[in-house]
Amino acid sequence: MVWASFSFACVKALRFEHGELHLAETAVPHGENEALVRVTLAGICNTDLEIVRGYAGFNGTLGHEFVGVVEASPDKSQIGRRVVGEINIGCGNCENCQTGDARHCATRMALGIHRRDGAFAEFLTLPPQNLFVVPDNVSDQQAVFTEPLAAACEILDQVSIAASHKVAVIGDGKLGQLIARVLATTGCELILIGKHKDKLELAAQAGIKTLKLAAEMLSPRSLDFVIEASGSARGLQTALDLVKARGTIVLKSTFHGGAVPVDTTRIVVDEISLVGSRCGRFESALKLLESGQVSVEPLIAAEFKLDDAVNAMAYAAKPGTLKTLLTTVY
Amino acid sequence: MVWASFSFACVKALRFEHGELHLAETAVPHGENEALVRVTLAGICNTDLEIVRGYAGFNGTLGHEFVGVVEASPDKSQIGRRVVGEINIGCGNCENCQTGDARHCATRMALGIHRRDGAFAEFLTLPPQNLFVVPDNVSDQQAVFTEPLAAACEILDQVSIAASHKVAVIGDGKLGQLIARVLATTGCELILIGKHKDKLELAAQAGIKTLKLAAEMLSPRSLDFVIEASGSARGLQTALDLVKARGTIVLKSTFHGGAVPVDTTRIVVDEISLVGSRCGRFESALKLLESGQVSVEPLIAAEFKLDDAVNAMAYAAKPGTLKTLLTTVY
Repeated sequence: MVWASFSFACVKALRFEHGELHLAETAVPHGENEALVRVTLAGICNTDLEIVRGYAGFNGTLGHEFVGVVEASPDKSQIGRRVVGEINIGCGNCENCQTGDARHCATRMALGIHRRDGAFAEFLTLPPQNLFVVPDNVSDQQAVFTEPLAAACEILDQVSIAASHKVAVIGDGKLGQLIARVLATTGCELILIGKHKDKLELAAQAGIKTLKLAAEMLSPRSLDFVIEASGSARGLQTALDLVKARGTIVLKSTFHGGAVPVDTTRIVVDEISLVGSRCGRFESALKLLESGQVSVEPLIAAEFKLDDAVNAMAYAAKPGTLKTLLTTVY
Repeated sequence: MVWASFSFACVKALRFEHGELHLAETAVPHGENEALVRVTLAGICNTDLEIVRGYAGFNGTLGHEFVGVVEASPDKSQIGRRVVGEINIGCGNCENCQTGDARHCATRMALGIHRRDGAFAEFLTLPPQNLFVVPDNVSDQQAVFTEPLAAACEILDQVSIAASHKVAVIGDGKLGQLIARVLATTGCELILIGKHKDKLELAAQAGIKTLKLAAEMLSPRSLDFVIEASGSARGLQTALDLVKARGTIVLKSTFHGGAVPVDTTRIVVDEISLVGSRCGRFESALKLLESGQVSVEPLIAAEFKLDDAVNAMAYAAKPGTLKTLLTTVY
């Protein structure tokens, strides 16, 4: 039995425990009726950085963006396959889980975020139904973007953006870049608003129109959709300034520091919709990667060895850093 | 010509000028290419009370809820008809106006609210296309509710509420009562949450399930839709507590005092939608009145003579007062 061969081995994992980040030797993880995945490559997300700053009160192995190979699984067809994994693990019994949406199960666990060891490790476990086989023409460096790319795709599951719409994405960071790339596939009149010349250039290379900082250069109240992905409370105010009457703001970023002041009178008088948006479906993201419609590799800033994960986190935490990867293959 | 006979007459109007509310003698209003309406009955809305408190910086004749009789109109078929009137007067040229929605024209006037004398007067003018003939079986006392009832109907134009949905309306005031009555027509599982025993009883008499104050007695995060119509900033927090993941909050009330603190993290993580909602279509409201599906007369608190309008405003301003009417027929 494959499982047994790992039972007593020690494997590496980047853990956050009692406020401290450290590389640890741990037992190979085991989950009842779950698949065991050998992680090949993992990505550092802002949520990982936020957890280290105290968000979510998580203790355990960090990380939720990964690609790996299935070592063992109750679903034998998965063994040996290259996979990515949906990070939400539902109870299986509630209304959301029964309709196939563990993402909103009230008692869900989330890989490397909530009650579940994550992907910055040599191994992880997930229920077999959380795993998605990566198409052969999608590299590990592309596949590791599946989870954040799915979060970007979620917007198109929630609101109907068409070629006739004027759309702005606020924030030129990792998430804003992915969102802009996904929305560009609709043919909408799109602009990415950001502060960083180099990142706006990256977006421009992907054929996206960009605007440096000066959101005030756009006509106020002129856009059908504004996507807030800046990670700053001010981004929402900018979105409110830019969206037109009956327009929609999609909120992608969560902010530190509790409640954000919102001009609800503008929302009521101009009948604006505010739509919260989080995790998306992996199928859509994998399709965009397989078809080559969205290019993600230019968003990679650096690749560190898992051994060097503490330094990688410090590197990723520098303001403005794009995607930092952790590899176990060396 | 009917018009001329009023030209030099003095007529009464309740005006708010330079921070002062007073009954004035004014000239009969005249609007180029507009209809002249002799107001029969008008209703005092919270917006009127807010204007007197300084909201919107309005100077002029107050009032926007009315029923009256057309004395003169470029559309001869309207003359002598009993009408209600859409309060937004658009520019006629912008995208919104061209698609028949003056409610969101950026340079619109609004009857008794913005750059346009209103309905607490013996006469008003409106463009002919703003007028809607009142069905014969709808009394003046019912028809005067058309505008706020249309605002309640607007919710059903914006979101799809079905019999299977769990819905709460927060606020047992004038607007909350109308909203609950409109939403009850969908057959949804509905509850009206309020603080006032007498008002909750009124709703109960209309067949609506009610809950006094204790929103915390409802399961948190359990409702598909929560309509915020309390006029209090705390109402939005209650709505956020009650709405379930992927649920929708409809914001109907505007608040004094600027921005409201909002837990945007809850909105993002649970993918909640917040939908601002203001004026609605008169057709829907008139249909509900004509069919008798919604009963509004129990919501009348008192009827004052226009002569006594200053006292009527003071009466209406007492917390918890239901609809106060002003009549010119005495």
